[in-house]
Amino acid sequence: MNKYNTDLDKCQANHQALTPIRFLKRSADVFPDRTAVIYKDRSYTWSEYSDRCHQLARALMGAGVGRGDTVAIMAANIPAMLEAHFGVPMSGAVLNCINIRLDSSAIAFMLRHGEAKAFLVDQEFSDVAKSAVEEAGLDILVIDIADKHLESGGSIGTIEYEEFIKQAPQDVAIRYPEDEWDAIALNYTSGTTGNPKGVVYHHRGAYLNAIGQVINADLIGEKPVYLWTLPLFHCNGWCFAWGLAAVGGTHICLRKAAADEIYQAIEKYNITHFCCAPTVLSFLIDGKPSNWRIPDHPIKVVCAGASPPVSVLREINQMGFSVIHVYGMTEQHGINTLCESQESWVDLDPIERVAKLGRQGVRTVVTDEMMVCTPGTYDPIARDGVSIGEVLFRGNLAMKGYLKNPEATKEAFTDGWYHTGDLATVHEDGYIEIKDRIKDIIISGGENVSSLELEDVIYSHSSVAGVAVVAVPDDKWGEVPCAIVELKPEYTDALSEQDMIRFCRERLPGFKTPKHIIFETLSRTATGKLQKFKLRNHAAETVKNK
Amino acid sequence: MNKYNTDLDKCQANHQALTPIRFLKRSADVFPDRTAVIYKDRSYTWSEYSDRCHQLARALMGAGVGRGDTVAIMAANIPAMLEAHFGVPMSGAVLNCINIRLDSSAIAFMLRHGEAKAFLVDQEFSDVAKSAVEEAGLDILVIDIADKHLESGGSIGTIEYEEFIKQAPQDVAIRYPEDEWDAIALNYTSGTTGNPKGVVYHHRGAYLNAIGQVINADLIGEKPVYLWTLPLFHCNGWCFAWGLAAVGGTHICLRKAAADEIYQAIEKYNITHFCCAPTVLSFLIDGKPSNWRIPDHPIKVVCAGASPPVSVLREINQMGFSVIHVYGMTEQHGINTLCESQESWVDLDPIERVAKLGRQGVRTVVTDEMMVCTPGTYDPIARDGVSIGEVLFRGNLAMKGYLKNPEATKEAFTDGWYHTGDLATVHEDGYIEIKDRIKDIIISGGENVSSLELEDVIYSHSSVAGVAVVAVPDDKWGEVPCAIVELKPEYTDALSEQDMIRFCRERLPGFKTPKHIIFETLSRTATGKLQKFKLRNHAAETVKNK
Repeated sequence: MNKYNTDLDKCQANHQALTPIRFLKRSADVFPDRTAVIYKDRSYTWSEYSDRCHQLARALMGAGVGRGDTVAIMAANIPAMLEAHFGVPMSGAVLNCINIRLDSSAIAFMLRHGEAKAFLVDQEFSDVAKSAVEEAGLDILVIDIADKHLESGGSIGTIEYEEFIKQAPQDVAIRYPEDEWDAIALNYTSGTTGNPKGVVYHHRGAYLNAIGQVINADLIGEKPVYLWTLPLFHCNGWCFAWGLAAVGGTHICLRKAAADEIYQAIEKYNITHFCCAPTVLSFLIDGKPSNWRIPDHPIKVVCAGASPPVSVLREINQMGFSVIHVYGMTEQHGINTLCESQESWVDLDPIERVAKLGRQGVRTVVTDEMMVCTPGTYDPIARDGVSIGEVLFRGNLAMKGYLKNPEATKEAFTDGWYHTGDLATVHEDGYIEIKDRIKDIIISGGENVSSLELEDVIYSHSSVAGVAVVAVPDDKWGEVPCAIVELKPEYTDALSEQDMIRFCRERLPGFKTPKHIIFETLSRTATGKLQKFKLRNHAAETVKNK
Repeated sequence: MNKYNTDLDKCQANHQALTPIRFLKRSADVFPDRTAVIYKDRSYTWSEYSDRCHQLARALMGAGVGRGDTVAIMAANIPAMLEAHFGVPMSGAVLNCINIRLDSSAIAFMLRHGEAKAFLVDQEFSDVAKSAVEEAGLDILVIDIADKHLESGGSIGTIEYEEFIKQAPQDVAIRYPEDEWDAIALNYTSGTTGNPKGVVYHHRGAYLNAIGQVINADLIGEKPVYLWTLPLFHCNGWCFAWGLAAVGGTHICLRKAAADEIYQAIEKYNITHFCCAPTVLSFLIDGKPSNWRIPDHPIKVVCAGASPPVSVLREINQMGFSVIHVYGMTEQHGINTLCESQESWVDLDPIERVAKLGRQGVRTVVTDEMMVCTPGTYDPIARDGVSIGEVLFRGNLAMKGYLKNPEATKEAFTDGWYHTGDLATVHEDGYIEIKDRIKDIIISGGENVSSLELEDVIYSHSSVAGVAVVAVPDDKWGEVPCAIVELKPEYTDALSEQDMIRFCRERLPGFKTPKHIIFETLSRTATGKLQKFKLRNHAAETVKNK
């Protein structure tokens, strides 16, 4: 045996499970009087917030919640939601945040599949939650989270949240994970096919990605005041719920991320950071207050999703927001890549510069490994900005797997790599740019056509309200692109199929031009997603009958 | 078995060993053209630095270095030293940085005890290294590191460093740790009693503390330009050697940390950060250039050791340096606590404020747990700024243990806590202030007298060049403080024992006043440390014969 492995074992003094719970304890100790959470007229210091999280943990333990049980919550970005992020894991249980836009049958599925022992329900959602509990047919502890600022919202539980945490037993010790591989959260993907899959997060990944976000978003220099525009049920707010605790920052709660509410919060609290989808950037541009003053320090906006149009990026930057583009997924604790800014970009033409800034970029400090490979192989594609490959990840941010779904887990982790199912190009500088989902790419005459790219072009037409591009079978080319276009009400009769095809041909090579346009209202899921597999069938049917 | 532990195992896709090696790979990929290392007229980009580290790793493997072997290096803060921090671990070996101030017999002990397979020697130290290799009687690969900027320095090895890495085999893959608990470095404490102990660092701790330093020192906001004033052989530069790679910062090498060289570097490279001992602050104040201009952004100085005098802290801050006081030890990857600045301090009187800033403070984000307990117990002491207790740590920054010394390891980790042997008070706000080593505290009439506190008072006398306070036996009080005082040459005859005792009595309570003063030159070890156990015997003897 090697000398470096002899009598040099792990013990409590030199090895402790990595867990974000440590961050809460530290901020409560180090910054007890600093503001941790603000929601309308309520405000808690780090000491008070920590106490409330501990109370919730003890209350859950008092109610019989044990290690490895599931505790579900359906809530907007309110204090109880932030408290659940520590209180539930500190009871030893696993936190299951439910998407507040789901219908009752999807929620019922999750409660049953996750075997929830308790369910905390923001009264804004009591109706749908009540139906879900009934449909699930579970005998489950339901706790109402009341909010005097809500106009309605009935009581469906046996106890109200404040009452519940107040009656917590005082004499029980909170539970640390026995191992950093223990589960901390369960997040269902809103799968566009089949049943949702339950993604299981671990304390190790949550700790590492929380620290990763501190670095990605630069939560250090000035003490961060973070606005909750991103729903906390999305990957636990990309782990910012825990990351803010690592630095003792301030959470500003927000029930609805509308432009006027965001601007009010910026003015009132001197917001330094928030996260969002690219669409929020457009809302902010459209809703810019007439008296908007560019802030002294740019407000950092961590933005995930498709690259926003260059015009949007340029305008939002000029308004005093500094956009950090990132990319990730539920299966990877939220964020895996970011578009690291380079010194050499400073001298670029502003349009070229924002185009570079809008890419999904490079792996974060805690991501470990990323490859973009020809699908079905492990051959990295050329760094030419044109070739398209699947994005693969390997490292400590990947989930434990899908709950009670070993087949799906095995498939996702084939050959020791997480297969994202996303297609990207790699630019000369190594930065990736997401082009499409594997299953949505269109192969026309042997050429790849990105449905996303085509959608971007069509969406840039001023009369278009929404668009989905899918493949339809074609005798000559195998597949050709077909665009389903929803026009703005005032334009419904103003545009012909040929007009739109011509518009695209002026902006794209011939093989990328859609061969068919269907004008109609796009149908979406409860969470607002397009189901391309349904649209594909529908489009093929429509084109065949044309 | 719980559902969260079923079919949710670790695999390559979701679990990778934490290791700083990842940081090097990422910075080489993401910032290939950014400057990584500058030393006089040499400069390497991250891509070049990474290549050189890989070459070193392959050269070592080509020379037969295997997993778990030890590779020693004795070098100033030069590029090869930074390259060894990645190159040696990437060969699978353990890096043993040797204190450049040691004598040949201490070095020989380390080479033998650590079983070094290879020894890289900066030619500045070739004479002492040559003697050490001979004394060690080992058949060992010695590699000379030449430097055209050195006036002398003979060749003692079989090959020169540049030649060695140039002839590295190209076809071997570098070695990642098989487990994050694998050893990455071996650092001998300069033990003031007995043989030095070999502290073994692990990849996990090195990774976590590197990220911890990024947060502690705020290496994010502006791209850091880090000046190597702290010797890299001290705890691998407190893990900054790895931390800079996490953010793609720039290392500025410096052979000697003299005030004029530091000021030259600040002017030439726009230094943003450096680390040092408190004495360096005094050098900087004394050596301030006549044309010193306060920098636009304060230069962050991470300072470890005894609290610097308030006057020093105030002056250095006014000069445009922002001091972050920290505390740690070899056994904990360098740094465990920092003095987190609080918003409420901004309004304090400047003197009060810098006094607060000079304390050792609170645990860092990655430290996990700290307690200050009545020695011999696990009872936390009162937060009264007066009671004195031993500082204990528990967490992922602690060493694997002492190499080939299970007794010392067991003792250090008694009851699952690392016992620092340092005594501190805890202030009302939870911030600690180090008072003394346990074995140096003086117990006079049942009262604790901190030798450090007394030394501070005596040192504040303008005629004093150095001072050590130790306990001497006393019939009435058990022990009393005795000060050994070294006067500045121009004052050697100007002060009497009674003068000095009176000076102390005006500033301290009676029981803390020294009862004996011995004026003489202080003898120090090769590394400049005072050996209090020797001084204690000497003082007792001198006082008895008075």
